[in-house]
Order: sequence, then structure tokens, then C-alpha cells
Amino acid sequence: MNHLPEDESRHCIKVLRKKVGDRIQITDGLGCFYYALITNPSSVKCEFSVQSEEKIPAANYYIHIAISPTKSADRIEWMVEKCVEIGIDEISLLHCKNTERKKFRTDRLEKIAITAMKQSHRSRLPRINPLLPVAEFIKSARAQDSKFIAHVDNANPIQLIHAAKATSRYVVLIGPEGDFSTSEISLAIKNDFKKVSLGDYRLRTETAGLYVCSVLHHINR
Amino acid sequence: MNHLPEDESRHCIKVLRKKVGDRIQITDGLGCFYYALITNPSSVKCEFSVQSEEKIPAANYYIHIAISPTKSADRIEWMVEKCVEIGIDEISLLHCKNTERKKFRTDRLEKIAITAMKQSHRSRLPRINPLLPVAEFIKSARAQDSKFIAHVDNANPIQLIHAAKATSRYVVLIGPEGDFSTSEISLAIKNDFKKVSLGDYRLRTETAGLYVCSVLHHINR
Repeated sequence: MNHLPEDESRHCIKVLRKKVGDRIQITDGLGCFYYALITNPSSVKCEFSVQSEEKIPAANYYIHIAISPTKSADRIEWMVEKCVEIGIDEISLLHCKNTERKKFRTDRLEKIAITAMKQSHRSRLPRINPLLPVAEFIKSARAQDSKFIAHVDNANPIQLIHAAKATSRYVVLIGPEGDFSTSEISLAIKNDFKKVSLGDYRLRTETAGLYVCSVLHHINR
Repeated sequence: MNHLPEDESRHCIKVLRKKVGDRIQITDGLGCFYYALITNPSSVKCEFSVQSEEKIPAANYYIHIAISPTKSADRIEWMVEKCVEIGIDEISLLHCKNTERKKFRTDRLEKIAITAMKQSHRSRLPRINPLLPVAEFIKSARAQDSKFIAHVDNANPIQLIHAAKATSRYVVLIGPEGDFSTSEISLAIKNDFKKVSLGDYRLRTETAGLYVCSVLHHINR
């Protein structure tokens, strides 16, 4: 018999107060919804029987944001929550020269992503990658992706909304509060990342992440 | 001699550590930047002399979001911060049937808006209106505005991104966690608000506010 994991069993029985025979919707986080009936309403190991399933096709574009964690963890946490609600496929954490946090645990971000996925009725859980030195991330990026680095300088680069084409796999780098260093920007450009602006106003790191996510969805509508 | 208000004087002298002769940028929140030199670095009443001014023209569209406050104040607070960064002209707070907060002080929201305006280098402070019963707000809305109510039902209304035209004054109503009541929706429709969907996924109240703001900017790009 299928059963929910312990924390989901507790939530289903203690919070949602589901009983035997109640219908629940479950997702595997990989694009499939299962419609099931509860057969054993245990708050430790809630058993269910699947009645039907629905496979949600993946979009024809893929959004991957690689971002420096913010000084205060709650700012990057809410960005993850909001990006999941609006739609994101992958989030990587970058350790840059000006990143103030040297360590960042991703388990809390994963929990937030799961809650936001369920809350917004999505069926795909984004991948969240642990903190990686930005140089390593840049060098390992796939050649065929649409690669951008958000950075405003006097050369006034093109805006992301004009630079990005529809139907693509996007990777966008977003720097820390103190911005990318000159050598980080050079390295990105050498590795085929294109400099883009996010508009005329200065956005906080976490707002930039959310804004990028929203722009890329709009390009694909 | 011109001088900064007390809290801005303290910030300028104690935090930014500005001295006599240092250049500062000031905004009146009404679309004008002043470039000035400090003449008396008092942390109570910092005096300055304006060297030049720059009038920033207003956009040819106007975004007004009328939203129910969230149960937890910090969610609506961050929405205000992010909307100001991304760009918003007016925020009204709605008291709906399902609004859990019966009171909401706007002075904290105003402080957050000022900080976000300064941080993002904007020159216009959005207007923030106090909590008003939704029926009163609906009846007093201007006839010539583009009026929308975010609500998803089985009739599956058109998406905001397709319903809203460029170059307009937009007013968008966003409901509380428990959504608008049937009679609130009827009243809005009777008063020429158009039902719109914000996409295929369920967004939290505060995410909906930010999403609306971002969609309306994209329509005008």
C-alpha cells in the first residue's frame, strides 16, 4: 500500500483533518499529480489508494537562476517562495567575492520550495543546488544554454527583456549586494554569458531574482 | 537654508557619514531629484545647498493596486517594498468580507515605501491609502480607468496580460486569503471591473500584487 512520508501524513491528518475515503491530490514533484483516496488515516504513515493520475507536460522553456545568497537569509528565502509560485526550474547559489555569507544550507530552501509548490498547485519541484564558487559555476555552464549575467555599468547593456529569445533554456547570474567583481564579470563574458540590464532602477538581489523569473515567463507568453 | 528632516539628517550624518562639502542626492518623492552640497552636517537638521535639479517625467501609464491586507503583516509589507522597487503609483488597502485584519496602520508601509524608493533610486513615492471597505472603494473608482478584479472561477476569465491595453490608468483589485465573496465580485462587475485571471497557478495574495505590477510594466514595454 502506498503511504505519505511522515511530515505529510501529519499535515494531512492533523491539519487538513482528512478521514478514510477522503480524496487527496498528491504530486511527485516531477510533473505528475495523483488523485487518491485515504485508506488508513494514520498521522505517521497515512495510506492511500491512487484512483487516477495526470501527467502535466513540461514547458518548452527552462528557467535557471544562479544567485548569491543575501546577507539576511529571509530575503533569499522569500525569493525562493515567490519564484516557485511564479514558476522556476532550477536555483543555484553562488559564492562570489562580495558574498557575505560563506555558508548557506539549502535544506530550508527545499522545504520552502515544497510548501510553495503545494500551495500554488504545481506539480514540479525546482532543483536547488548548494553554494558553489561562481568561477566553478560559470565554467561548468552548458554551452548551448542562453546565458546572461545581470550587471549594469556605464556601457549600459541591453535589457534582458530584449536580449532573451523565447523557447530556450535560460541561465541568469545575479550578484551579491556588493555586485560581481570585475574579474567575475570578465570570466562570465569569456564563457559566453551576455551582460544584461534589468531596467532603469536598482533592484535588490532578491528582487532581481524574482524580476528575471517574471520577465522570462512574459517572453514566453 | 534648506535642511533635511530629522530622521534623514541622522541617516545622512551618522550612517552615511557625510561631511561639509559632500555631494548628496535628494528627492522630493514627486519626480524631482536635487543634487546638493552639505553646508552644515548636523545630525538633527542637516543643511544643504542645491546645485542642480532634474525633473523625471512621469510614465504614460499608472498602476494602482487595491489589495486586502494579509493575515501576517510582513507579507503585505514585503509586497510594498518589492512593488516600489519594480514601480507602482498607488496602493489601496481593501477591507473585504474575508479580510482577517480589521485594522491596518499604513505608517509602517509608508516608511517601507520611502526606504525602497531611495534604495532603488526612484524619484516618485507611491500614494498609500488607508483601509477602506471594498464596496466603498469599488463605487468610488473612476469611470475612465482600466478596472480589473483578479478572480479565478470555472468560467475561466481572460488573463490580465491579454485583457489590459498599454498606456492606461490601471486599477486592479486583489482579494484576501479567502478570496472575494460572491457579492463583492458582483458589485465589482456591476461597476465595470473586468474579471481577470493571473495565470494557471494559485498565487498568494502578496505574490498576486507583485505579479500584477510586473505584468502591467511588461505590457507597456
